Amino acid sequence: MSKTSVKKVVLAYSGGLDTSVILKWLQETYGCEVVTFTADLGQGEELGPAREKARLLGIREENIFVEDLREEFVRDFVFPMFRANAVYEGLYLLGTSIARPLIAKRQIEIAEAVGADAVAHGATGKGNDQVRFELSYYALKPDVTVIAPWREWTLTSRTALLEFAEKHQIPIAKDKRGEAPFSVDANLLHSSSEGKILEDPAQEADEIVYQRTVSPMAAPDRVTEIAIDFKEGDPVAINGEALSPASLLARLNALGRENGIGRLDLVENRFVGMKSRGVYETPGGTILAVAHRAIESITLDRGVAHLKDELMPRYAELIYNGFWFAPERRMLQAAIDASQAHVTGRVRLKLYKGNVMVAGRESPHSLYAMKYVTFEDDQGAYDQADAKGFIRLNALRLRLGAMAGRKGGAL
Amino acid sequence: MSKTSVKKVVLAYSGGLDTSVILKWLQETYGCEVVTFTADLGQGEELGPAREKARLLGIREENIFVEDLREEFVRDFVFPMFRANAVYEGLYLLGTSIARPLIAKRQIEIAEAVGADAVAHGATGKGNDQVRFELSYYALKPDVTVIAPWREWTLTSRTALLEFAEKHQIPIAKDKRGEAPFSVDANLLHSSSEGKILEDPAQEADEIVYQRTVSPMAAPDRVTEIAIDFKEGDPVAINGEALSPASLLARLNALGRENGIGRLDLVENRFVGMKSRGVYETPGGTILAVAHRAIESITLDRGVAHLKDELMPRYAELIYNGFWFAPERRMLQAAIDASQAHVTGRVRLKLYKGNVMVAGRESPHSLYAMKYVTFEDDQGAYDQADAKGFIRLNALRLRLGAMAGRKGGAL
Amino acid sequence: MSKTSVKKVVLAYSGGLDTSVILKWLQETYGCEVVTFTADLGQGEELGPAREKARLLGIREENIFVEDLREEFVRDFVFPMFRANAVYEGLYLLGTSIARPLIAKRQIEIAEAVGADAVAHGATGKGNDQVRFELSYYALKPDVTVIAPWREWTLTSRTALLEFAEKHQIPIAKDKRGEAPFSVDANLLHSSSEGKILEDPAQEADEIVYQRTVSPMAAPDRVTEIAIDFKEGDPVAINGEALSPASLLARLNALGRENGIGRLDLVENRFVGMKSRGVYETPGGTILAVAHRAIESITLDRGVAHLKDELMPRYAELIYNGFWFAPERRMLQAAIDASQAHVTGRVRLKLYKGNVMVAGRESPHSLYAMKYVTFEDDQGAYDQADAKGFIRLNALRLRLGAMAGRKGGAL
Amino acid sequence: MSKTSVKKVVLAYSGGLDTSVILKWLQETYGCEVVTFTADLGQGEELGPAREKARLLGIREENIFVEDLREEFVRDFVFPMFRANAVYEGLYLLGTSIARPLIAKRQIEIAEAVGADAVAHGATGKGNDQVRFELSYYALKPDVTVIAPWREWTLTSRTALLEFAEKHQIPIAKDKRGEAPFSVDANLLHSSSEGKILEDPAQEADEIVYQRTVSPMAAPDRVTEIAIDFKEGDPVAINGEALSPASLLARLNALGRENGIGRLDLVENRFVGMKSRGVYETPGGTILAVAHRAIESITLDRGVAHLKDELMPRYAELIYNGFWFAPERRMLQAAIDASQAHVTGRVRLKLYKGNVMVAGRESPHSLYAMKYVTFEDDQGAYDQADAKGFIRLNALRLRLGAMAGRKGGAL
Repeated sequence: MSKTSVKKVVLAYSGGLDTSVILKWLQETYGCEVVTFTADLGQGEELGPAREKARLLGIREENIFVEDLREEFVRDFVFPMFRANAVYEGLYLLGTSIARPLIAKRQIEIAEAVGADAVAHGATGKGNDQVRFELSYYALKPDVTVIAPWREWTLTSRTALLEFAEKHQIPIAKDKRGEAPFSVDANLLHSSSEGKILEDPAQEADEIVYQRTVSPMAAPDRVTEIAIDFKEGDPVAINGEALSPASLLARLNALGRENGIGRLDLVENRFVGMKSRGVYETPGGTILAVAHRAIESITLDRGVAHLKDELMPRYAELIYNGFWFAPERRMLQAAIDASQAHVTGRVRLKLYKGNVMVAGRESPHSLYAMKYVTFEDDQGAYDQADAKGFIRLNALRLRLGAMAGRKGGAL
Repeated sequence: MSKTSVKKVVLAYSGGLDTSVILKWLQETYGCEVVTFTADLGQGEELGPAREKARLLGIREENIFVEDLREEFVRDFVFPMFRANAVYEGLYLLGTSIARPLIAKRQIEIAEAVGADAVAHGATGKGNDQVRFELSYYALKPDVTVIAPWREWTLTSRTALLEFAEKHQIPIAKDKRGEAPFSVDANLLHSSSEGKILEDPAQEADEIVYQRTVSPMAAPDRVTEIAIDFKEGDPVAINGEALSPASLLARLNALGRENGIGRLDLVENRFVGMKSRGVYETPGGTILAVAHRAIESITLDRGVAHLKDELMPRYAELIYNGFWFAPERRMLQAAIDASQAHVTGRVRLKLYKGNVMVAGRESPHSLYAMKYVTFEDDQGAYDQADAKGFIRLNALRLRLGAMAGRKGGAL
Repeated sequence: MSKTSVKKVVLAYSGGLDTSVILKWLQETYGCEVVTFTADLGQGEELGPAREKARLLGIREENIFVEDLREEFVRDFVFPMFRANAVYEGLYLLGTSIARPLIAKRQIEIAEAVGADAVAHGATGKGNDQVRFELSYYALKPDVTVIAPWREWTLTSRTALLEFAEKHQIPIAKDKRGEAPFSVDANLLHSSSEGKILEDPAQEADEIVYQRTVSPMAAPDRVTEIAIDFKEGDPVAINGEALSPASLLARLNALGRENGIGRLDLVENRFVGMKSRGVYETPGGTILAVAHRAIESITLDRGVAHLKDELMPRYAELIYNGFWFAPERRMLQAAIDASQAHVTGRVRLKLYKGNVMVAGRESPHSLYAMKYVTFEDDQGAYDQADAKGFIRLNALRLRLGAMAGRKGGAL
Repeated sequence: MSKTSVKKVVLAYSGGLDTSVILKWLQETYGCEVVTFTADLGQGEELGPAREKARLLGIREENIFVEDLREEFVRDFVFPMFRANAVYEGLYLLGTSIARPLIAKRQIEIAEAVGADAVAHGATGKGNDQVRFELSYYALKPDVTVIAPWREWTLTSRTALLEFAEKHQIPIAKDKRGEAPFSVDANLLHSSSEGKILEDPAQEADEIVYQRTVSPMAAPDRVTEIAIDFKEGDPVAINGEALSPASLLARLNALGRENGIGRLDLVENRFVGMKSRGVYETPGGTILAVAHRAIESITLDRGVAHLKDELMPRYAELIYNGFWFAPERRMLQAAIDASQAHVTGRVRLKLYKGNVMVAGRESPHSLYAMKYVTFEDDQGAYDQADAKGFIRLNALRLRLGAMAGRKGGAL
């Protein structure tokens, strides 16, 4: 087998069956030292067992890395993205996309620290995640060797995988013997489900698919009122209580979960070229997205707000496609971050059975000027006569066009 | 008074107090013949009284135009706009904006037919509607004289208006003596409310403001399932029943109304330069917007879908600002319409207490290819090995950048 | 060797050494029937010898296709692209990019006609052309087998290639024994040179590189005046003489060549990820680009012109990257073509030693309105007082921002 | 006369006849104290006479401000704009547009310093400059009173103006008795000419119009070679000699002037709605624009370069329209400036009779990687096999579309 020569590899390791098989496969195939990296990004699983399992599979203590990245994840990845009001294809809040660059970044940092020459991940060859991992790897360590077992090995059936596991004495949880009816990814921002029973976009997703939220129909029949405080574009407090980024998002997740907020059933276009169907749950993020637009609505200048809206689809596409660590993403971020200097204030919301309703917004930097907009006498703040000239000069090119025979803006 | 000389003016006439005062004021101020034009765009008011009132105010029969424009409105204005998934500032479905060009167009057509040299409208000097009316007028008849009484006259207080009405024997409905607590505009697509009690964006809108929808909290506690059929980008049937454009939208409105769908409380940026707060109800339009994105999700190519998303904010801004009859709007429309050739199929939805949930989508032109996306064996449809080269070439510039010292996409 | 099974392949065949080697290599490697396709796109070479050579190499008469595609090339590819004022990275007129889709299209048409299941081209694995060819192939015949010998074979050195040629009795022109000091691609729109002696971007290109133009320094020291007539966005006549598309471009090429027009020395970004340095000569196209902008300057509405300018980089990128036969390119083209309905008139130019200077433009559809712009008394066509209101409402949001403490548009 | 009450006004004063008349007219009409501000932006006129003239017209010494702003102009306005490669409507380097905000800014600063409540300028009511001045005024001092005499007064004929001058003992230079055949604006970046004899776009501009450049035909018949050094996006040296911003631009102007570089005859679209024809001379700026793109071509990442190209038309439009001091311009600038961190290096150019030809570019931060692009053996730096997967996944959606019946990217 003419595999690239690899000395030491840092594996993104969940502790589950698949990455445990990968661990053994890497040792066997590349004859290399394996370093495991397990991160807590809020996926809702204990990390202890992953450490245990790595030990059990023979990984040396100094090669086992287990880290809680929740605060970094929300502060440096989720919040910057929400400053942009990023949604992919009009709907998707990019919950999986935004987690991959952080995992990749830590893998590379660990690789540098332990002198590894390779990194490996457990993403398949059909999805976006392989792209997100690997573009990040290459951008951070251009000479790294990337191993993507799912694209290389022959363990392409469930049976082959289980056989490999048994042969290598990898413990298999009882409930993993049968195949999961769909595939799940989760972190503090969201949970996504796809594949298998979800593959037909004409079929509604079964309630069993949803893991992070109660359904709107099952949510309590009462309104929950909350207030979110923003500072320079980021949320900093709920109901007046200052919270760290991860704590704040966790709190919003709890609020969203119980009120049936943040479900999305979507057919999206993957970067690798085909359409796929995903079911997403982003309870806290959905609340946050509504609140951020609301605080921006009174604090952002129109020109800035519209420019942000025009740049957003491109920005979201970059993140979806895995270009977080690309210079054009950073260039856009520079513009977006600059826009948030005065996005400070409070938004009050009502949560109710899937709905996030804005009940009020206020800011010390509000650009909403009641005396200009009022139906009451504005005491001369606004001269209505100005509108005539404004309209007439905006109309001038249309009039000249019509005079030249192109009425009604005819092309 | 050095007013422009006017012979005959076509007034956008609602039959209400304000436009009745304008009618008399035009006669008095310009000494001109007044032609009234009253349109049914689905605002939910009888047109008969408007005709009666015009007669009562002395308008000759041949100068009274009353027309039902609902089908034209939905077919030629609302549907083309929804093909673009147009939302202004991320949220507003442009319900008022899209009606003004049609009213203006008919006013100009009538002006041409009756030999009028002027048109007049009842929009104030602070809002967007004056711009939308007048840009349309000028684009369609560049030499027309435009009269905007609210920008010209001295009847700027309620008292002055009522005195003028009394003096000219204009009947005043009892409930119009007092001032309305907010201002309303309505058509088949939506109802908007603004001003007075709504002027403070920190204060929640009172339930009294909502006219088109029950609140999500008051909506029935059961799911309503519907199916919408699309043909080339436009909805053509509900639950299998073919409906004309206006009938279809009216049906969706009824469904949305009873399920608490389509409320929006928004601070938006006006074209004339200030922020304003509006409360919108777009029950049918909200359902339609969700459904249109869903059918596009399986029928549009990714490149086309993303291009549409990038063009959309500009397109929405054009409509909001009143540039429906501008050549750049037509140019964008040419692109948008071209994209819809295969946007045909059925979307199934669940309506529930403010929620519009996609339950399924199918199309004879679906680009969703299950054999490519499947987690099951795809029998070689997709070669996972291709992903490696795809990623490596996408990464090449990032690697070259990192080698040159710009790691992680550093600028 | 586990090559895909191929029955019959259509090869883009120039008659030169490289594609002759490919021809034999295809027969030998795939054991398949080879169909040659040689197109005249105005590269300036006789097609007769290609036919002779194909015969000599044993291709059957019915499998030799030699076609003059110059008119189709200019009419259906070059002119539509020039309607968009397309330039890649601010400078490159896309001369190579635009030719590939046409060659690919004819290859596929021939493949369909002769029942071939594969196509092959002679582009290398490092460049853009392989992408342009293959994206076009796949878009037109999704099940086609694509063979790119340069990515597959082992003939990667000049020596190996010549040995293969000798072994297979492929005649080698004397001047092909040594390697060319740079590589050339040419068609009716342009000639490009790259590689070898041109690889160092710090070194000026030698005069020997230029094949289509005299240098500005060597061009005659007199001005050549010409007039180009446009009709709906396309040039139709020179100096009043109506010409077919290809004849017109050829005429412009002659004019540009002798006046030293259209040279470009560029470092560009390839789609496959690296930068490359090219020397381009686009004599006629450079003249046409200047003339088209000039006729648009008096016939296009501002909104349309600006929208075109904003869409252009994306459109140019699509063509550069090989997405001519992609739906988003067609969607943009629909908008661009719609914009050209009135781009009709005459532009007069002065050509002089590398310069293309506009001397005048006129059109029956001109939107230039002298009475509006004049410094002389305009007799009331334009009311200067309108400007006040126009400015004040455009300034309103800036004033409100400044009042809120953000002076000078501070973010 | 119901003029706004004004106490003290800062007038943008050139010392010429028109602004001298304005000075007197302001005193007479508003009964206010006039402060004159005369700036040297490199227009090529002595400032001493303006001071003398102001004294002569009775302005008190402490109310006369004369300042050399050339360095600030180039450093803080011209160079930031050139970082964006800004051109309006594909051609215009924005020489007039970029000077207005600086003049306005200093007027406001002086107004604050001397306690003035108003500012005045001498721009007409038909042009863009009134907008540029006034938007800047309002953005910097939202409560300022703006006086635009050309929009207010009755001195609309040359005769009336001269009579007013004589009546108020304003000295009239002999050559100002007759009217100039066209109007000129100039600064260190450019000279623009428009109006009168230039109003017919079908007529070529007379040689007399050009003031800053010899014609290409009259330029010397020899090549001038120069080298420009850039640091972080800005030029810092010519031929190795470090120069201040204004000195550098002046040097480039001299080089451009004598080599016939930077002439432009353009029909453009004004913000106020009509088309106008201008003749521009930007000798140094034209050289700089070519050089900046050349240094960017080897130092910018592709994603960044393309994003810049897409944002540029919007950025240029903002500057043209007068929105320099608008937050969305600042937001774009944040992105543009961020992109320039590594735009450092040397560009060698050949100047010849109107041509600016790139002869070489080099940078310590070059991203041009010869070993990747080379036609020679690259020793494995680039794996040509990667291209196959890259193309196949880029093609996948096109293939799926074609399989669904939409061949060739059919919409």
